Amino acid sequence: MSTDAVPSTAVVSHDPRTGEPRAEIAVEAGPAEVDRAVRAAAATLDALADRTRRAALLRAAADRLEAAAEEVVATADAETALGPVRLRGELARTTYQLREFAAVVEHGAFLDLALDRADPALGRPDLRRMKLPLGVVAVFSASNFPLAFSVPGGDTASALAAGCPVVVKGHPDHPATGELCARLLREAAERVGLPADVVALVHGLDAGVELVRHPLTAAVGFTGSVRGGRALADVAAARPRPVPFHGELGSLNPVVVTERAAATRAEEIGAGLAGSFTLGTGQFCVKPGLVLVPAADSGPVEKAVVAAAAQAAPGPLLDPRMRRAFLDGVRQRADLPGVEELLAADAEPVDGAPLAVRAGVLAVGAAQLAEELLEECFGPVTVLVRYRTAEELETVLGRLTGNLTATVQLAADEDGPEAAALLRRLEPLAGRLVVNAWPTGVAVAPAMHHGGPYPATTSTSTSVGATAIERWLRPITYQNAPQALLPEELRDGNPLGLPRREN
Amino acid sequence: MSTDAVPSTAVVSHDPRTGEPRAEIAVEAGPAEVDRAVRAAAATLDALADRTRRAALLRAAADRLEAAAEEVVATADAETALGPVRLRGELARTTYQLREFAAVVEHGAFLDLALDRADPALGRPDLRRMKLPLGVVAVFSASNFPLAFSVPGGDTASALAAGCPVVVKGHPDHPATGELCARLLREAAERVGLPADVVALVHGLDAGVELVRHPLTAAVGFTGSVRGGRALADVAAARPRPVPFHGELGSLNPVVVTERAAATRAEEIGAGLAGSFTLGTGQFCVKPGLVLVPAADSGPVEKAVVAAAAQAAPGPLLDPRMRRAFLDGVRQRADLPGVEELLAADAEPVDGAPLAVRAGVLAVGAAQLAEELLEECFGPVTVLVRYRTAEELETVLGRLTGNLTATVQLAADEDGPEAAALLRRLEPLAGRLVVNAWPTGVAVAPAMHHGGPYPATTSTSTSVGATAIERWLRPITYQNAPQALLPEELRDGNPLGLPRREN
Repeated sequence: MSTDAVPSTAVVSHDPRTGEPRAEIAVEAGPAEVDRAVRAAAATLDALADRTRRAALLRAAADRLEAAAEEVVATADAETALGPVRLRGELARTTYQLREFAAVVEHGAFLDLALDRADPALGRPDLRRMKLPLGVVAVFSASNFPLAFSVPGGDTASALAAGCPVVVKGHPDHPATGELCARLLREAAERVGLPADVVALVHGLDAGVELVRHPLTAAVGFTGSVRGGRALADVAAARPRPVPFHGELGSLNPVVVTERAAATRAEEIGAGLAGSFTLGTGQFCVKPGLVLVPAADSGPVEKAVVAAAAQAAPGPLLDPRMRRAFLDGVRQRADLPGVEELLAADAEPVDGAPLAVRAGVLAVGAAQLAEELLEECFGPVTVLVRYRTAEELETVLGRLTGNLTATVQLAADEDGPEAAALLRRLEPLAGRLVVNAWPTGVAVAPAMHHGGPYPATTSTSTSVGATAIERWLRPITYQNAPQALLPEELRDGNPLGLPRREN
Repeated sequence: MSTDAVPSTAVVSHDPRTGEPRAEIAVEAGPAEVDRAVRAAAATLDALADRTRRAALLRAAADRLEAAAEEVVATADAETALGPVRLRGELARTTYQLREFAAVVEHGAFLDLALDRADPALGRPDLRRMKLPLGVVAVFSASNFPLAFSVPGGDTASALAAGCPVVVKGHPDHPATGELCARLLREAAERVGLPADVVALVHGLDAGVELVRHPLTAAVGFTGSVRGGRALADVAAARPRPVPFHGELGSLNPVVVTERAAATRAEEIGAGLAGSFTLGTGQFCVKPGLVLVPAADSGPVEKAVVAAAAQAAPGPLLDPRMRRAFLDGVRQRADLPGVEELLAADAEPVDGAPLAVRAGVLAVGAAQLAEELLEECFGPVTVLVRYRTAEELETVLGRLTGNLTATVQLAADEDGPEAAALLRRLEPLAGRLVVNAWPTGVAVAPAMHHGGPYPATTSTSTSVGATAIERWLRPITYQNAPQALLPEELRDGNPLGLPRREN
């Protein structure tokens, strides 16, 4: 392979508040660079087999990120405009995740150790199972979480925890943050005696496709759009040796407000909804984008959400292309038959951020709900759908595809059979059901599931929480192996003191 | 949809001993029949949500199969020629699997229940996770296990255990057995108060493709050839909503005989290998098809395997097409440069089985190993590859793709660093490593893994053992749900007494 014929393209960091370029950060990787990165990563597999060192790496990475917190937050803010408060919180979440996965590695339950002793009476041989890392994992960064779902994020942390080297395809909206974090992770590796190449970063759309195609790439983690994610999932599936593709693509995150809830909690629901859909300028994958409200009682809810959303501070989106897509997307939706623009989302330049926008609220009758309104519109807008009857509600639910979350807003004491039936109805539509709360804010916790039926995710796994490690492992069974040839994890007497099931 | 234009094609049971037709069993399903079967199956999802009843169904299915054992074995023998001894054993394995999954359903660990109580200090809401069935599972029967990997087999048992209705695409080599077993399973469902449609059977190649494409099909289990499996995997991946495809495709099951093993255990290794590759007339997915022997000491091993294999009784293959592919495949391989035919596999008619064949053994130097010899040849033949040096051994191993199993034959006391390095070298190549034993015979046990890197399987999961249930489930988290709206499994006080992790 040679890149001689491929002109190198500069990767430039931009200020999303103004759209102005900040600095050239790197060049896009050609096929030869991608090949080098993947091979170098693959060569670290043996070194990563040492679980103690893996745990140390994850902790050292958290330490390095914290030590460089000021620089990390400033760099990320300069190219994402997410603001230092949010970014400090995201950094804390990121280091928490890294340390949690260090604990996961040390605890060892993820190895899923199982032993069946030989049973000559049953003709059963000695069988001992554990899980092994798959190999090099390709991670695609998300635009909207420059830390927690990017270079040092959950996919990288869980893959390293599993023993898999990582090659990240950086997001063009925060190349400087990506490079900085990659450097910190590589330094962390060297500090604990591991090769720096356990993590590498490449830039460029074509480089991403090369990465998914590379023969030594063993699995892919992706967070991004339905269109981009599906295209890469198709590439992964079409390889001579297909590889698992764990993609988090898109989600409408429907909300159902019951009649009794609208009648008794309109103010609270409106304010909560406004807070949730405008949080982070509406740039969360779990933003509630479609809200079913009972037509007879929709007035107070609508009034409350509009009042609260109108108070939300205007802000810039992650990049000018997204801003354009947001403004155009809202405009097209507002122009559909039957749609009322309760609050106009629009450009609203503010001091220091000429590219800022303000939040919008649309409303439409369930009978007039056009297909376009069932597509995610990234940014601070939500669509209220007024349903007149249970049948209309069911018709809308029947048109939905998979989601990360679905939310129900009930009256305070509403927990009878109808409410239960509503929850059961939403189960097939989402990976997380939220009751009388809002889907934004994904707690990093063992019982969290961040994933959902397609297109929310392309697999049945989670990208948040300890079980995210399962995506990067495969089982292997040793039959009749002498003690000295078994991995220590599986030897008699459990010398490593790991959780094991012995049958 | 209408099948008016599609002429119905008869599904005929054949006697593989003679190639003669036995009886018309059914007709191939058109798109309308497939659609009806999938919709009827989907309509049983709610009924299957009752775990107690699911366990009862699995036990009733085992009971029905045992009650009809004579008819089942006779029917299967008439159209597979696998013989009553083997088929009685396979039936016992099948009923054991069904009962094991009943125990899995009752035990409840597969629900992976996890609870995080609300922690206002951390800003963490109440989170409770469990696993839900994916929906209708399409199961593709294997030719070589008319019971254990067919209609009442492991895929069906694990899917029903997960709460998923099943539509089986029957194998054309045993339609009568398939129909009989489907009837018994449907009767079992009715006996425990479940709809018969929790299991359905359809026939025909096109019906199989329709089944994978059907919008309500939520996952696929497949056992068969690389070619057929990959084609269906591609269909599953290309759907508007892609679905998980768990396919067990093909495997060479390499064996490495060390120099010291060849020098000290030649007789035992030769006899063991012959027993393993001729078992069931070589029609096992874990048949050892490629055996690396040290060139300097290959003579005694070769002599022993040929002597033992020559004694193996000739037998018919599962159908005349496979017999033709076997005979042609062996002939083509034997004619490759450098290949020696140590024992000629050939047609050898015997009483009552004019289509019987006898086992063959090929040998070739590692330096002359043609690509064709690295492709699975279904039937009683194995290829001995003579390696002269460690480099030659490594070169051959470097050319292998994924396998269900890899086996090492060591000397009695050979467990030093070289043997350990050999095992580590084989780990990336297989899902089960066998030491001084043979890969045929897949114990149904908790520590078993039956799967391996592509093309052995298309996913990282197993199709044998309790963890096979994981293929048909997805997680869901309930956030902040009142007690009355939670599934009982997740309520305070653990009213169902299930294994849960509370954090």
